[in-house]
Amino acid sequence: MNSEAKPTKVLFVGFGNVGQKVAEILYLEHEKHPQTHSLDLSIIGIVTKSRGSLVNNNGIDVVKALHEIRDLGRFSWTNFELTSIKGLEAVQQLDYDVLVELSTLSIVERGEPALSHVREALKRGRHVVTANKGPAAFAYHELQSLAYQHGVSFLHESTVMDGTPVFNLARSGLKGCTITGVSGVLNSTTNFVLSRMEQGESLEEAVKVAQKEGFAEADPRNDLEGWDAAAKISVLANALMGASITPLDVDRQGITQVTVADAQNAVKAGKNLKLICSARRDGNQVHASVRLEEIERGHPFAPIRESGSILMIETDLLAPFVIAETDPTLYDTAYGVINDLMSLPQ
Amino acid sequence: MNSEAKPTKVLFVGFGNVGQKVAEILYLEHEKHPQTHSLDLSIIGIVTKSRGSLVNNNGIDVVKALHEIRDLGRFSWTNFELTSIKGLEAVQQLDYDVLVELSTLSIVERGEPALSHVREALKRGRHVVTANKGPAAFAYHELQSLAYQHGVSFLHESTVMDGTPVFNLARSGLKGCTITGVSGVLNSTTNFVLSRMEQGESLEEAVKVAQKEGFAEADPRNDLEGWDAAAKISVLANALMGASITPLDVDRQGITQVTVADAQNAVKAGKNLKLICSARRDGNQVHASVRLEEIERGHPFAPIRESGSILMIETDLLAPFVIAETDPTLYDTAYGVINDLMSLPQ
Repeated sequence: MNSEAKPTKVLFVGFGNVGQKVAEILYLEHEKHPQTHSLDLSIIGIVTKSRGSLVNNNGIDVVKALHEIRDLGRFSWTNFELTSIKGLEAVQQLDYDVLVELSTLSIVERGEPALSHVREALKRGRHVVTANKGPAAFAYHELQSLAYQHGVSFLHESTVMDGTPVFNLARSGLKGCTITGVSGVLNSTTNFVLSRMEQGESLEEAVKVAQKEGFAEADPRNDLEGWDAAAKISVLANALMGASITPLDVDRQGITQVTVADAQNAVKAGKNLKLICSARRDGNQVHASVRLEEIERGHPFAPIRESGSILMIETDLLAPFVIAETDPTLYDTAYGVINDLMSLPQ
Repeated sequence: MNSEAKPTKVLFVGFGNVGQKVAEILYLEHEKHPQTHSLDLSIIGIVTKSRGSLVNNNGIDVVKALHEIRDLGRFSWTNFELTSIKGLEAVQQLDYDVLVELSTLSIVERGEPALSHVREALKRGRHVVTANKGPAAFAYHELQSLAYQHGVSFLHESTVMDGTPVFNLARSGLKGCTITGVSGVLNSTTNFVLSRMEQGESLEEAVKVAQKEGFAEADPRNDLEGWDAAAKISVLANALMGASITPLDVDRQGITQVTVADAQNAVKAGKNLKLICSARRDGNQVHASVRLEEIERGHPFAPIRESGSILMIETDLLAPFVIAETDPTLYDTAYGVINDLMSLPQ
């Protein structure tokens, strides 16, 4: 990533499923993914809230760290790299080139603590890669202008549709276009739940299945109340349409009020209930919404079942096009982080 | 496009519908497309087979040229920029930075004369942007290595799915992934014809409608016999999967043998007949095919109606994802050329 062939020093803040999968791909399954071999990383810090934190300026033994988490659920007390450093301290004090911010989204805290981590790293002139929607949903333009001032990048591919290229696509694939609208089915938990309710399963039962399959959170309210979708459409509107909105500005609906009868009646009428995210230019403003809608069977969003998602992009020059992912796994989110790491300026 | 703010000198070879639309967007509709304003072009040559050719080293009067074609069907005999230069001469002799190659695909001539135009421009160290599938379908690796040797770019976004980002997406949106397979519905004429035949229209009638709507060629054999689709899957296999194949290597089927009864029987069985392009890695080889297939109603390719197209990309890290365009117009193909022009190194 730099011409003197020194490895890029990386600090992870947050090391849950996504962070561990990134590390597994790069350190345990390395041989299976030849296109990642040009990445030359040295992970100098992994800071977590409940699994302990590791720091080693010469590079953490990542394989050992992964094995400890697998075997003990946390870093071992005997690991000489173990420290008690906190996220913000690590971001402000450690010597790294790239912050990989993977802490959990908090709407209530308006993107914190991730937002402060990202802001402080950019102020220090460090690149930031994040899968956390909070910073880009609550402070996109502040963060991008900090990045610009300091000549670094703030990348967040995994915040929408996991690693399926959305922001990378818009950045390089849509040069010369003005994006006039984006819409889609972007929250997999609600889409999964609505799909199951069409088949007669209750909302509560469907949520439990989604939790068991690992893509719904232990506390599913962010998903069911439309907050996760609102955060995603905020990131899209801010990053692709020059908007300055937060999830609190989104005209938002959730699915908690939906009954099995509602879902099944829609199907009987040849339709599907979907939670649709949308952002549309309206003069100088961008209006964003998350609404429960009945989608006609022939609509491009209708076939998106279970945990799939789809995004339609409308522009001034190109006919509307869609990008859709099917059956994403943890690899997809982790891959978005890897793609961002590989997209940092050489 | 270069730091001294000198305009980029562009040579057009071929100036049919696509070339004219590119020029219209940049010179007649300029104000409507603010994101294209960073392009600073000087078109120094427009060479056509049947509309005359214009050369002016200080920049052609493009608005006048467009009006002449609209009014006269060709460049006017009174236009002082009119010359009798031929394509290959122009490519070899004129002073330009970028060749925009928009001549017509010839399978029989194995990509000529476009292939020679592209080769000669690259040998002279000039960038090439083309919407013609021939060069990338018949000589992708030769041309990319010429481009690499001479430090220039060979871009061809519009060769597959018009301007919908496919190659730009793969180049920047899929860093770190190995593409293991691509498949899709990529020929709009055959897809349109098959959609109409499902409703009882004969192949001949449906072709006539497609011609009238402007997306089927006067001679539809390239489309109906699967050659256009074979050229597209060749470009995809060569550019995205490192293959070295030509359309002649593709296991190819067309739709000329399909009857209305075939199309309607498929629908009765809950399926749709589609001409499916596919390329798949098989050890060190890439096997490419264009086959008529019955697609189940729930398959992501099934809802692609009329002139739409869809591409599924499979990789080692990311779950399969699709990109689809609906109702493309000439703007879409023209936009791909503009995107390529804007993607040239600064």
